[in-house]
Amino acid sequence: MDNASAMSGDLDIEEFRRVAHQTADWIADYLRDVERYPVLPRVTPGQVRRSLPAAPPVTAESLDQMIDDIDRLILPATTHWNSPGFLAYFASTGSAPGIVGEMLTAALNVNAMLWRTGPAATELEVVVLDWLRQMVGLPEPLFGVINDTASSSTLYALAAARDALAADIHRRGMAGRDDLPRLRVYASAEAHSSVDKAAIVLGFGKAGICHVATDDDLRMDPNALRRAIEEDLAAGVIPCAVIATVGTTSTASIDPVPAIAELCAELGLWLHVDAAYAGAAAVAPEFRPIFDGVKRADSIVVNPHKWLFTPMDCSVLWTRRRDALRNAFAIVPEYLRTAESAGPDTVDLMDYGVSLGRRFRALKLWLIIRSFGVTGLAARIREHCRLATELGRWVQQSSGFELLAPVSLGVVCMRAHPAGLDDEQRLDALNEKVLTQINEDGQFFLSHTRVRGRYAIRVAFGNLRTSEVHVRSLCDALSAALVPLAAM
Amino acid sequence: MDNASAMSGDLDIEEFRRVAHQTADWIADYLRDVERYPVLPRVTPGQVRRSLPAAPPVTAESLDQMIDDIDRLILPATTHWNSPGFLAYFASTGSAPGIVGEMLTAALNVNAMLWRTGPAATELEVVVLDWLRQMVGLPEPLFGVINDTASSSTLYALAAARDALAADIHRRGMAGRDDLPRLRVYASAEAHSSVDKAAIVLGFGKAGICHVATDDDLRMDPNALRRAIEEDLAAGVIPCAVIATVGTTSTASIDPVPAIAELCAELGLWLHVDAAYAGAAAVAPEFRPIFDGVKRADSIVVNPHKWLFTPMDCSVLWTRRRDALRNAFAIVPEYLRTAESAGPDTVDLMDYGVSLGRRFRALKLWLIIRSFGVTGLAARIREHCRLATELGRWVQQSSGFELLAPVSLGVVCMRAHPAGLDDEQRLDALNEKVLTQINEDGQFFLSHTRVRGRYAIRVAFGNLRTSEVHVRSLCDALSAALVPLAAM
Repeated sequence: MDNASAMSGDLDIEEFRRVAHQTADWIADYLRDVERYPVLPRVTPGQVRRSLPAAPPVTAESLDQMIDDIDRLILPATTHWNSPGFLAYFASTGSAPGIVGEMLTAALNVNAMLWRTGPAATELEVVVLDWLRQMVGLPEPLFGVINDTASSSTLYALAAARDALAADIHRRGMAGRDDLPRLRVYASAEAHSSVDKAAIVLGFGKAGICHVATDDDLRMDPNALRRAIEEDLAAGVIPCAVIATVGTTSTASIDPVPAIAELCAELGLWLHVDAAYAGAAAVAPEFRPIFDGVKRADSIVVNPHKWLFTPMDCSVLWTRRRDALRNAFAIVPEYLRTAESAGPDTVDLMDYGVSLGRRFRALKLWLIIRSFGVTGLAARIREHCRLATELGRWVQQSSGFELLAPVSLGVVCMRAHPAGLDDEQRLDALNEKVLTQINEDGQFFLSHTRVRGRYAIRVAFGNLRTSEVHVRSLCDALSAALVPLAAM
Repeated sequence: MDNASAMSGDLDIEEFRRVAHQTADWIADYLRDVERYPVLPRVTPGQVRRSLPAAPPVTAESLDQMIDDIDRLILPATTHWNSPGFLAYFASTGSAPGIVGEMLTAALNVNAMLWRTGPAATELEVVVLDWLRQMVGLPEPLFGVINDTASSSTLYALAAARDALAADIHRRGMAGRDDLPRLRVYASAEAHSSVDKAAIVLGFGKAGICHVATDDDLRMDPNALRRAIEEDLAAGVIPCAVIATVGTTSTASIDPVPAIAELCAELGLWLHVDAAYAGAAAVAPEFRPIFDGVKRADSIVVNPHKWLFTPMDCSVLWTRRRDALRNAFAIVPEYLRTAESAGPDTVDLMDYGVSLGRRFRALKLWLIIRSFGVTGLAARIREHCRLATELGRWVQQSSGFELLAPVSLGVVCMRAHPAGLDDEQRLDALNEKVLTQINEDGQFFLSHTRVRGRYAIRVAFGNLRTSEVHVRSLCDALSAALVPLAAM
C-alpha cells in the first residue's frame, strides 16, 4: 500500500497497476479489432452529450465503471483514425512505439518549458529533431522545436518573420518596432487555411495574405508571385514572408521551391515551407527531390503526427534563424529565470513559441524512429505511395472514374464521371452521393475537396495499417457505389 | 498474429501487448518510487545530448532496449514533476486516472478538429467543461474549449477581443477591419508573461500592453486602470481588453475583479480573467469567493493540468461570447466542410483557436473528475491550502525567516532574514544561496520570484502527493540551510 497516494484521494499504486494492465489489454484488443468498427461512427450530433449525466459526480466512481462507459458510449461514437480504412484528410496513426511513448510521457508528466524543468526532455528534443533533419536530408544548422500542430508552427514562423522584418525596418530608421507599415504574406491559392489563420492572428488581417495563382498542376506560379510582390511594393505594402507548400492539402502538389527561394533571396523575404504532410516522404531517398530548394528556407514545418506514425501531437518547426524565432518570443520574467539559462549548452524551449507548458513529445518520436529504423519508415512511406499509384492506375483504367489531378505521393483526387454525363453541377452532386455512400458503408472514410472548382473524392494514404487489400476493397466499393447512382 | 501490423513494420499486436504490460509496470514502479529520485536531477547542460547517438538508427531496435535506455539515460536527467517534493512554479501532477486517460487517448488517437472526426471527443469536451463550470460555480451560458496551455488560451481570448472590437469599429464606420488604430490591453504589473507574449503575437507590440500598478497586496489598482485607459483614449489609443488575474504567478494575489468588471462594462471592454492556477480552488465552496465578479468576464482560463491533477496538457478557455471567439478563428476551406457542420447540435472545435489538430483531452479530465468526485478534488485543494497556511505560520514564528506576501491559497513567498542583516542586496544573495542549497539537496524543488524587488523563495502547493510530512521536512530543510549560511 502506498500511503501518499491513498491520502491524496488518488488510486493506491497497486490499484493503479491493476487498472493500467487492464487498460494495456484494452488497447491491444482495440488495435487488434479496429477494422471491426465502422470508420465513421453511426451517431448524430448531440447523441453522446445526451447520454452523459448533466452534472458531475459528487463522490468517487470506479475506473472499471468508466472503462465500461468507454466501451458503451465513447467507442461507438468515435471516428477510428487508427483504422486502415481511414483515408480522409491526412492520416494520423498511433503506432505501437508511439502509444508506449505517450504512456511514459503521461507518467513522467514533465513540463519542459525550461532546461531545468526537463533536461532529458529538452535535450532529447534537440537530438531527435537533428536525427529527423538527417533523415529528410536537410543540411545543418537547423534548430528545431516540437509544437502541437502545423497551424501553431506556421504562426510561430510568421511571427519570427515579422519580428525580423521589424528589427530590420527599425535599424534602417524607417519605423519603430511597434509602428509597422502594412505587411503582407504570400502563399498559393492551394495553401492550407492555417496560413490565413496565422495572418489574421498576427494582425495582418484578411487583406494581409495574398493568394498567388497556381499553374496547371496547382503549384504556385513564381512569376505571379513576383508580380504580386512588385505591385504591393509600389502601393507601399511591405512584403513580410512567402509560404511555399510542399504537398498541398487538396492534391499534394509541390510548389517550385527553388524558384521561390531564389526570389525570396533576391528580395530579402522570409521563406517558410509548409511540408506538414509531405515532408516525411523525404525519408525515402527516391522522394528526396520534393525538398529541392528547401535547404534555403528560413523555416520549415513537418508533422511526424501525419506520416511518421506518431500519435497526436507532434509538429516539427525547424528554422535556420534560431535567433529570430527566439527574439520574437523570449520574454523571461523573474520567476522563470534560471542560473544555467545563459550557458552555451542550455536551451529553454519556452523561448521559441507561444506555449509555455511543453509536453515531453520527443519521447514518442524517439521510440518510433528506433522501433522502425530509418529504412523501416522509408519502406512504409514508399508502400503508401505505391498504393496511391495503384489506385490512380485503376481510376485511369476504369470507365466510370477519372483523375482530377496527377497522383502525388499518397494523394489521389478523382471523381466518378460516367459516359455521357458532362454537366458539372450534376457531376458534383453525383460525386457527393458516391462519397456519402462509401462513408456510410463503414469500411472506409474518405474526404473531399475541390480541384479547379470540381468536387473531388480525395483518398490520402498515410495510415500505417493500410495495405494492398484495402486498395482492392476500395476500388470495389467505388464501383459498387457508382452503379446504382449512375443509373438514376 | 496480426498480419496488417506485421506488414506495416509496426510491432505485432501480441508483442505490443507484452510491451504495454511491461510499461504499465514501469509506470506503477516509477510512481511508487518517485520520492527516491532527487526532484532536480544532477546533470549538466549537454550531458544527455552527448550520451545519445548523433545519427538515427538505420534498422529497427527493440523496445526492451529503449526502456533500458530510459532507465539509464532519461530518468536520471528528469525533473520529477510527479514528486511530492516538487513545490516550484505551479505543480502539474499526473494522477492515476489522468495517466489511464492519456493511455486511451494515445490508443484512439482521435483528432477532434471537426465533430465528424471525433463525435465522442467533441461532445465529451462540451459535457466535461460544463461539469467543470458547475464545479467552480460559474453561471450558464459559458462555452468552453480545451487548449494546450494558458498561454494559448489567453492568446485566443485576446484575438477574439480584438476581432469583436474591430467589428464594432467597422460597424461604426471608424475604420476597416484590417485598418485598426493602435490598440492596447491592460494587465497588472503582476500578470503572467503570457499576456505580454499574446500582445506581441497579435501585433500590438510591446507598447500594446499597459502594466497597471498594484496595491499593497499586489492586486491591480482599479483607479490606476481607469487613469491608464483615460490617458490612452485621450491620446487616440483604443483600449481593447483588460486581463484580470485570479491568482498571480508570484504570490497568488487576486485582482479585484468586481471593480474591474464594472469598469469594463462601463467602457465596453472585453474582460479576460486569468485563473489558470487558482481557478481550481473555486471547486472548494469556501474558496468560491475568489471568483466574485468573474461571471461578468467575457473569457476565463483555468488549467486543470495545474491544480486538478491532470497530466499536461489541459487548459480550459471559457467564453460568454462564443460567436466572437468563433468569428476570430473560423476559416473553413472546402476540404474541411461537412454536411453536419451547420446543425444546431454540432460543434467543430477547430473553429475556436489556432490549432487545427486537437487531441482527445477531455477523456483524462472526465476520468479524473469521476475518479476523485467533486468532493474528493475539493478535499485535496483544501488540504494544499492548509499546508500553505501551516508553512506560513512556521515562517512567521521562525526567527530566521519572514513572509514577503500574505499566504494566498497554496502559495507562500518568504525569505531568510536573520536578525541584524538588513542590507537588501546581501539578503537577496543569501536567499539565492538558501534556495540553491535546498534544490541541490534533492528532496525538494522550490523556485523563486521577486516581491516588490526583493528576492523571494517561493513554495507553491498543488502537487497531488504532497502532504503534512513534506511540510515538516521542508521547514527542517530551510532551517538547516540557513544556519551555516547565516554564520558566514
